[in-house]
This record gives sequence, structure tokens and C-alpha cells, in this order.
Amino acid sequence: MFTVALAKGALLHESVSTFQNVGLDFSAVLKDSNRQLMVPSVCGRARALLVRNSDVPVYVAYGQAQLGIVGFDVLQEQKLQVANLVDLGFGTCHMSVAVKSSSGYLSASELPPNCRVASKFTNCAKKFFDQIDLPVQLVHLSGSVELGPITGMAEAIVDLVATGRTLRDNGLVEIEELFKSTARLVGHPLSLRLDMGTLQEVIDLIQNQSLTKTIS
Amino acid sequence: MFTVALAKGALLHESVSTFQNVGLDFSAVLKDSNRQLMVPSVCGRARALLVRNSDVPVYVAYGQAQLGIVGFDVLQEQKLQVANLVDLGFGTCHMSVAVKSSSGYLSASELPPNCRVASKFTNCAKKFFDQIDLPVQLVHLSGSVELGPITGMAEAIVDLVATGRTLRDNGLVEIEELFKSTARLVGHPLSLRLDMGTLQEVIDLIQNQSLTKTIS
Repeated sequence: MFTVALAKGALLHESVSTFQNVGLDFSAVLKDSNRQLMVPSVCGRARALLVRNSDVPVYVAYGQAQLGIVGFDVLQEQKLQVANLVDLGFGTCHMSVAVKSSSGYLSASELPPNCRVASKFTNCAKKFFDQIDLPVQLVHLSGSVELGPITGMAEAIVDLVATGRTLRDNGLVEIEELFKSTARLVGHPLSLRLDMGTLQEVIDLIQNQSLTKTIS
Repeated sequence: MFTVALAKGALLHESVSTFQNVGLDFSAVLKDSNRQLMVPSVCGRARALLVRNSDVPVYVAYGQAQLGIVGFDVLQEQKLQVANLVDLGFGTCHMSVAVKSSSGYLSASELPPNCRVASKFTNCAKKFFDQIDLPVQLVHLSGSVELGPITGMAEAIVDLVATGRTLRDNGLVEIEELFKSTARLVGHPLSLRLDMGTLQEVIDLIQNQSLTKTIS
């Protein structure tokens, strides 16, 4: 029996579909009544761990889950030792720098040196501002990052943007894109090396499914 | 006008009551229909920022909120520059080390050296294990820490315990208490020093309210 880590939240439905299409039915986790964090597949060959988005790479890196599905954004932020196996194409969003629309800044390089930048993704933000050689003071927030510029705590934010509605609702505007993100199938490197074929079969099926989708 | 940071979640109702009892009515934040993250008091003297528990000390430390209410556990974990003003007595819980009840460990010092300990509060956990001189490998998780020992990823967890039900439901048992936690009124040190009386009046009223409760 092997274990897959699934992220609660926005990616959950399509993550369950991905495994369902290759014969692993974890749809029990989607029921409103479900309170279990560990759910066996209907066939009994695998089990799913239902965890926070940012905990998926942790369970996979430590080998408690051999496979997992998680956003590329989380992988970029955490840099844990997991194998990035398949781009699943769903959960599309992008990491952006945003400012108040009234601020007048048109690109990240126009921000004043040593200004404050609020983010849940401070590692991604640090890497980006290091690359453009602009020293900034990063403020780590856990939620509602858009409050940073609104309250005047930060000149800019680095955050994940899907539809852009949250930014618009809060009078913010994107001025630079760091990278695009989609859901990824990830694996525990050692488990993949020691695999006798079980994991590879699942990975191949998901890869083919993903390719078929891209072509059609 | 001054700003208070309120934590969403378990402390919110009593935080709103605390300010309501001293004449600042932020009860609009409690309405199910409320989507605003910034809410003025009915009297117009102050406004509330509705933020994540762990973001309260950030807004207070940077002076975007002059006062805030947050759990002592968050203050211990973050060590940001905020003034710990009043112990409000509600939101009682404690930070504990817990293990699988079947593990046989009766105290933290019995844990094997270099074992894995999962926690959302890795700074608190590090401090504790440093004090008892036990080297451990800390694994940071964002949620459902109880999965750590269940999946075999960690021998122990360090987590906040209120009723103990989550631990019992997952076959875990507490073996050591790190500290007790309650909600605290915190303030921005510089704003307190520059205060012309407005903030001190609110602090004194909340202090008296809290003392009256303790005595009665």
C-alpha cells in the first residue's frame, strides 16, 4: 500500500479526479461529512492523507507519502527535497508583485529601496527582489496580505493571483509577474528509486492523462 | 482615530466583547455577512483590523495597529516587539508535548535523541527541547499536526491543547506542558510612549474589567 498527500482547498476536487481517472478512488474525502484525515482508496491499494497545501511537500519529502499533488508556488517557496514529476495543468495562477493602484508604480524596479513588502511567500519574494537587486524589508503575513498596502504597512505585496478579483476589490494592481503556477504531481525521491513498478505505473498513467488533455 | 488588531477565529467573540465593555463597538465584524477586514467602531473613535491570529503581533509591531488581542502562544512563538499589557483571562489553553498513547513515553526526556517532533510552533518547541538538552529534529507543519505521529513521521508533537479532544480522537496523550496560554492585550511600544491619554484610557478600562472578573 502506498500513500498520496492531497491538499485541502482549491486543488482538492481536481486532485481527486486525477487519481480517480487512473483507478484510485479517494472521492470519500470530498463528502461534507468526512472528518477523516487518512482515507483508503476504494480498491484498497492506496490511502490519501488530507493535509494543508503547504504540508504536502513535507509529507512527501519525509517519505510518509510517496506521491502528492501540490501547487508549484508551494514548491518554489519551500524548496524541500521532492521530485517534481508531472505538470497537471490545473490550479493555474501566478505569483505577482502588486501595489495600490493609486501609487503610480508601474514596475517592481520603481519601488523605493528599503520599502516594505508583505507576503505569505517571503522566500519567493526575497529571491525576486535579490534578482532585480532591490533591497526591500520583507514582512511575513499568514493571511489577507492585501491589508498590507491598505493599512500603509507595506508599499507592495507578493501574492498568488488567480482571477485578480481580490486585488481589484482592494484597489490593488499587479505590476510584475514572478512566475506562473499549476498543480504538480510530486514524489518522494527514495521511494521512486526503490519502487518495483507500482508507483511508476500510477505516474505513467497520470502523465498520459495529462498529455492527452494538453493535446485535445 | 486609533486601530486595534483582532484575531479571526476562537478569540474573536470575546475580543469584541472586551472592547464593547469599554465603549468600543466592533460587533459588525461578528456578522456572518461581514466581508470587510477593516471595520470602524460605532462611535467612530477607532477601527478594527480583522486578521489571522499570527498576524496580530505583526500589525502591532509595525504600528499599523496601536492595540491588539492575541493568544500568549503566538507571542511566545513570534517574539516580535510588542508590549504585553493585560492578561485577559479568556482563550485558556496550554502548549504541550504529546505522543501516541501506545508509545509508552511518560515524559519528554524519555523521547529518543534526534527523534522527529512535528509542530506549528517550532520556535517554542526548539526552546523547550534546548532547555531539557534533548536534540530533536523539528518538522514544521501548518495544520493537523496530530497526523505526524499517526503517519509515523514524528515520534511527538508540540501543539496547543484546549479541551484535549483532538488528541484523544487521534490516540495521542500529553506527556509534558510547556506553558499555559490566555488572550493578551498587546500594544505598539512607540504609540504607547507618544500616547496623549487616549490609548491609556482604553488600556486602564480593560485592565479594571479584567481585574473585576478575576475577583468576582
